This record gives sequence, C-alpha cells and structure tokens, in this order.
Amino acid sequence: MSEALHPPPSSTVYLRVNYSDVDRMGLLHHAAYLRYFERCREEFSRRRGASYAEMEDNGWLIVVVDATVKYRLPARFDEVLAIEVRLVSVGHAALRFEYDVRREGSHTVIATAMTRHAFVDRDGRVRRIEQDLHDMFHRPEQVTRRGEVG
Amino acid sequence: MSEALHPPPSSTVYLRVNYSDVDRMGLLHHAAYLRYFERCREEFSRRRGASYAEMEDNGWLIVVVDATVKYRLPARFDEVLAIEVRLVSVGHAALRFEYDVRREGSHTVIATAMTRHAFVDRDGRVRRIEQDLHDMFHRPEQVTRRGEVG
Amino acid sequence: MSEALHPPPSSTVYLRVNYSDVDRMGLLHHAAYLRYFERCREEFSRRRGASYAEMEDNGWLIVVVDATVKYRLPARFDEVLAIEVRLVSVGHAALRFEYDVRREGSHTVIATAMTRHAFVDRDGRVRRIEQDLHDMFHRPEQVTRRGEVG
Amino acid sequence: MSEALHPPPSSTVYLRVNYSDVDRMGLLHHAAYLRYFERCREEFSRRRGASYAEMEDNGWLIVVVDATVKYRLPARFDEVLAIEVRLVSVGHAALRFEYDVRREGSHTVIATAMTRHAFVDRDGRVRRIEQDLHDMFHRPEQVTRRGEVG
Repeated sequence: MSEALHPPPSSTVYLRVNYSDVDRMGLLHHAAYLRYFERCREEFSRRRGASYAEMEDNGWLIVVVDATVKYRLPARFDEVLAIEVRLVSVGHAALRFEYDVRREGSHTVIATAMTRHAFVDRDGRVRRIEQDLHDMFHRPEQVTRRGEVG
Repeated sequence: MSEALHPPPSSTVYLRVNYSDVDRMGLLHHAAYLRYFERCREEFSRRRGASYAEMEDNGWLIVVVDATVKYRLPARFDEVLAIEVRLVSVGHAALRFEYDVRREGSHTVIATAMTRHAFVDRDGRVRRIEQDLHDMFHRPEQVTRRGEVG
Repeated sequence: MSEALHPPPSSTVYLRVNYSDVDRMGLLHHAAYLRYFERCREEFSRRRGASYAEMEDNGWLIVVVDATVKYRLPARFDEVLAIEVRLVSVGHAALRFEYDVRREGSHTVIATAMTRHAFVDRDGRVRRIEQDLHDMFHRPEQVTRRGEVG
Repeated sequence: MSEALHPPPSSTVYLRVNYSDVDRMGLLHHAAYLRYFERCREEFSRRRGASYAEMEDNGWLIVVVDATVKYRLPARFDEVLAIEVRLVSVGHAALRFEYDVRREGSHTVIATAMTRHAFVDRDGRVRRIEQDLHDMFHRPEQVTRRGEVG
C-alpha cells in the first residue's frame, strides 16, 4: 500500500549539461539523464536534512526498482537544465519520484521521467520505511549554497 | 503505423560488468544498463551488416524517444551478462527494442527493458525509414569474432 | 614555444562527488577526476566570457594531448571538492592547465593534476591560437550564478 | 624498493569504442581511456587466475596512485582497439602498469599510458604484497572465451 502525497514535496535543481555527457550529435546522452535525476534526488534529500551517504552508512540501501524516461526535445552541451523532482508517493518499502526537465528560463518540458525505489538492507532484504524517514520527506526544503548550479 | 515483427529478430550479447560501472554497493549502476543496451543495439546492427557509425555519417541520426527499465535482481561486478535484444516493431519512423538480461548460464531474468527510437535528419526532422533498412533488419545475424565478451 | 603565465590565471570551482562517480569502495573513481577537471576548464572559460560550445561551433576543436593525475588521498561520496584550475602556459597551439584538489574548507591537497591541450581544426590539423583567445585568458574572471556547486 | 620485471608479463585486450564513450567530435573521450585501461587490468588478472572482485572481497583494495596518458592520435566510434597492458614493476606495496593503444590490425601506437597502484586495507593502510600475488603475476596468461572483444 502506498500513500500518494498531495501536494508532493518537490525541489527544482539546476544542472549544467557537461561535455563528457554529450554524444556525437552534441546532445545529452540518454543514459546520462538517469545520473542527473540521481543528483536531483540527492539534492532533494539534502535540502530536507537527509543524506544518501549517511543512509547507506546506516545500512539503508536504496535500490532503483524501475525507471522510465520520455525524451521529447534534446538537451545540448552547456545548457543549464531546471529539473523539478517530486516525491509522488511513499509506501511501506518503496518511493516514487517524478521529474520534469526544462531548459532554464523556459516553460517547455523537454523530458519527463519516473523512478521507483525500494529500501533494502545489506543482504538485499526489503526494509520498511521508518516514521522518521516519512517525517523527513515532509519537512520544508532548505536551499543552501550547497545547491548545484544556479 | 508500426509493424510488429513475428518472430522478432533477436541477438544475444554478452557483456561483462566493469568496475567503473558498479556503485558503492558493488552493483551495476542503474544508469549503466542503458549504456549496455546501446552496446547491444550496436552489436545487433553489426551482426546484420549495418553500422551505427555509417548510418550517422550518412545523416541518419537515431534518437531515443523513450526508455523503460525494470530492475528485478542486481548484477554484480565481474559477472558476465547475457542480454537478449529483440527488435519488436518497426514503424514509418520509429523502432522498438526489448531486452531481457540474464546472468550467463542462468535462466533467471534479472532485468527487462524497452527502448523506442526515431530516425531524424541533421536538423532534427523525423525521417521515414527506407526499405533497405527494413531489409537489413530481416537479414539473419552473422556472429563474427567481432562480438563482445563470449 | 610557449609562454609561461605569471601569475597564472586561476579559478576555483566547487564540485560535489556524485553517487554515480564513486566506486565499490565509496571513493571517487580515478577516471572521474578527468571529467571533473574538464568541468573546471569549462567553468574557467565561462568566467572569462568564452564558451567551449561556441569555440567548437566555430571550428575550434580542443583536444587533450596528455594528462597526469596524482591521487594522494581519496575523495568520498557527497563531499564538495574545491578544485583550483590554473592556466600555466600558452603556446602557439597548445595550452597547459594545472589543478589542485582540496576538500572544501580544508587546506590539504588531496590530488594534483596537469593536462595539455592543442587546438585543431575539423580535419585534425593543428591551429595557431589567435590573439583574441590570448586576450580572453587574461581577462579577470567573472563569477556568476552560473557557477557549479557553491 | 621495486622489482622491474624482464620481460614484463603482458596481455593484449581488444575493446571496442562504444557510442556512449565518444564525444561531440566523435572521438573517444579522454577520460574514458582510464576506464578502458581498468578493464584491461581486470582482464590481465583474470587471465592469470586472479580476480579483482575476489581480491576486494578478501580485503585487498587496490587504489590508483597516479596515472599518465599521452594521446597521440584519436580513437573513433566503433573502432576496435588492441590495448597491450604490461606489468612493468612490482614493489613491496605498489604495482606499475604500462599501456600501448593501437587500432586493431595497425602497428601505429595511438596512445600510451602508465598507472601506478597501491594495495591498501579497508582502513586505507598500505599493505605489503604477498608472495602468492607475486606468483600469480608470473603465471602464463590463459586466454579464455571470457575475453573481451576479439
């Protein structure tokens, strides 16, 4: 059973398209989007006082269960992307994030995506999400100078 | 309109999980799967006498339109993966591939995926897929020593 | 013949160690440093009003001729690195950058590096560096909100 | 004190330049070479009955101490590279590898490189290389079907 969040907690993270991530056509390589989304989730947690690194050190491993990306328009080298990441639902052991990618300063959504995540322990067994993690996700975000580009 | 292919042309490509692609948990990073699938599509074409490189040089750019990956079980550093890639449909301007990932020597599917692709010209306009490309995909595969691991 | 620059123009760029760049030991993968340095050079140029993207579009391709990295202490997931990039010499057709990597807020240098670059045209022929490029590198840096982390 | 090896044990590994590793110029990205060399070292060990994965599982962590790459000529998308990796010296706690990169079927060396490695334990302390590891490196290589491209 999963709880849909209304409105979903969200963060907008600005990431620049790096040279090593563009392909022969000069476009952001399609696999790189998943890495950029991961950076957005890290920042989403960081702004709410949590840290992937600490969670892992405490034995909370987060695995990606599935991922879907829809690429509508290309992102080019050196562009700054404004990626809105939303936590749309939280279940007993799973999280679901959604993403809208825009070029900074533009309203046009150039890509959308969804990822689902499960919490497991070091032996790969599913772990229930504890209350304090639930609480964490509902905290208002704190944007610090630690943010990415922007 | 797209034509479903029965049976779909398929290839099995063996790829080893490299150190630089595993994460802190020692598991193949979820974004790396899309790069591995791309290597499988390159090999799929190569075995049928076509080459991504030549297609691009001839102004046929192939863009990924959407991608979905379902991660069931992890892939670990140094394991050899047997990835079956199938071309399941060909439309006027689009292709759809599906993938089953197994560990070599095992029947268990540890991940499945789908990617859709469009052909565009250098200005990003959709191009119709020409007959000789259709023909190419129906040729029997030729596995040469040029294959990946295996 | 190359001209050594005293003092060399320099920029400090803050980059966070991303999850997808750490290895099984939780440390920044050694190959990722070269990509991080590339981001620093992009930012170095950007702060002086130049852009890699534009240079390439104008037919100025920059190729890496050699690179050396000395890894003294590891960088860990989620740490912010303060990377000082210096343009130490400019020749007729070549540039040389040096790098000091520190953890943000620390004086300890955890890695040093050097990269050399040549300018070539689309056919791979070496191009002389023009005066306006020389001038560009001597402009004072402008740090804008477009910077990376920090 | 380190022992130079005459002749150095060597392996030639064939790797294909993948699409996701080429840059906007269609050339193998300079940072990707270090990842390709890592795959060569993995294969070098594998052919001598050792495995990075096992070494790490046994608490032998191998860290890269320094790396130098000289890029003479570009490698292009879809080319197969023949990379000769040689273990040139073994010290109490360090290894040194050298590399020559050629295009398959050509004698021209398009890149050379050197990497140095130290063995450390899980706490980052340097470990002495034990005799059985020395022995391992002197075993003749066994090329199995587990090789990479070729």
